Amino acid sequence: MDNRIRQQLEFSLEIDKEKNIFRQTHLSGNGRQENDAEHAWHMAIMAYLLKEYANEPVDIGKVILMCLIHDIVEIDAGDTYAYDEVNLKTQKAREDAAKERIFSILPADQKAELIALFDEFEAWETPESKFAHAMDNIQPLILNHSNGGGDWRAHGVTARQVYGRQNKTKLGSEQIFQISDEILKENILKGNIKE
Amino acid sequence: MDNRIRQQLEFSLEIDKEKNIFRQTHLSGNGRQENDAEHAWHMAIMAYLLKEYANEPVDIGKVILMCLIHDIVEIDAGDTYAYDEVNLKTQKAREDAAKERIFSILPADQKAELIALFDEFEAWETPESKFAHAMDNIQPLILNHSNGGGDWRAHGVTARQVYGRQNKTKLGSEQIFQISDEILKENILKGNIKE
Repeated sequence: MDNRIRQQLEFSLEIDKEKNIFRQTHLSGNGRQENDAEHAWHMAIMAYLLKEYANEPVDIGKVILMCLIHDIVEIDAGDTYAYDEVNLKTQKAREDAAKERIFSILPADQKAELIALFDEFEAWETPESKFAHAMDNIQPLILNHSNGGGDWRAHGVTARQVYGRQNKTKLGSEQIFQISDEILKENILKGNIKE
Repeated sequence: MDNRIRQQLEFSLEIDKEKNIFRQTHLSGNGRQENDAEHAWHMAIMAYLLKEYANEPVDIGKVILMCLIHDIVEIDAGDTYAYDEVNLKTQKAREDAAKERIFSILPADQKAELIALFDEFEAWETPESKFAHAMDNIQPLILNHSNGGGDWRAHGVTARQVYGRQNKTKLGSEQIFQISDEILKENILKGNIKE
């Protein structure tokens, strides 16, 4: 086995660990907590299906790839809940160290390529990044809504916190934001999200 | 919410169920059984990383999408273990019914698009289909190998059975088959796969 393919397969095995990183979101049907690999898969398919709602034309292949790899760093850094203000402060440093360790398993060209893609996602500047983030927001939102907003209630999340995050969906897709806003308003009205 | 986006989101919620379809493969580190959504996510990233080894040039975006959606039918049809000769006989009929029900949730154009992609995957004819199948083979193989071949031992799988499936990796990638063959030979030698 030559060194290049050995590195590629070693990385492939390493990312298997992402299936053990659990999020605060629960699966539909009031299921168990979702893990990062499932979340990434779900977001990637949703990006494909909902691409017509992107504010600007997007390279959908790039969006899908961003969705697939955006949480690999959490293998080391762990999942940081969107409304956990303490851990959000250290998130970037933890994720930077993880990024360096994990992507370094790959051959140098692929390391550079995936880090560039991850950094582009994080920078929230390109149409692809903005649309991928819209998917990162809408995917847990539809699961949580299907479960009667249990995840918001469990964490005592407020409308201000939710909109602090969900408002950014607008940057990627005004139409997906409109849908998100309808769902959020319904959950505020029902008391699942605190006013 | 207009009807089109309502259908797209209903389908998005429906496929969440794929996370509850468990396979015979175990996660690395002798972990729990893997589910279909995790498997699809893993295969899709591996396809991207290993695309240089495809026998013929492939549209990698198409391969990734095939990987992501190829097991959606198992939401209704269940996972059929690769070496379960009884259930393999009824697999196609079960999957055809599932395909019709599940993809019909989508708007007609997207239903047709995803069914065409699924059928292309199943037909094993195009370079994209052949390479996606190579990923469907190598992904569980590296997990199982990392766990000392436990899944093969648990099912008393024979070399003839394993090669019956793994030989087809050659159609998509001679180089990935070479690696698979090295791994299989090692596991036969160790007695993890019966001669």
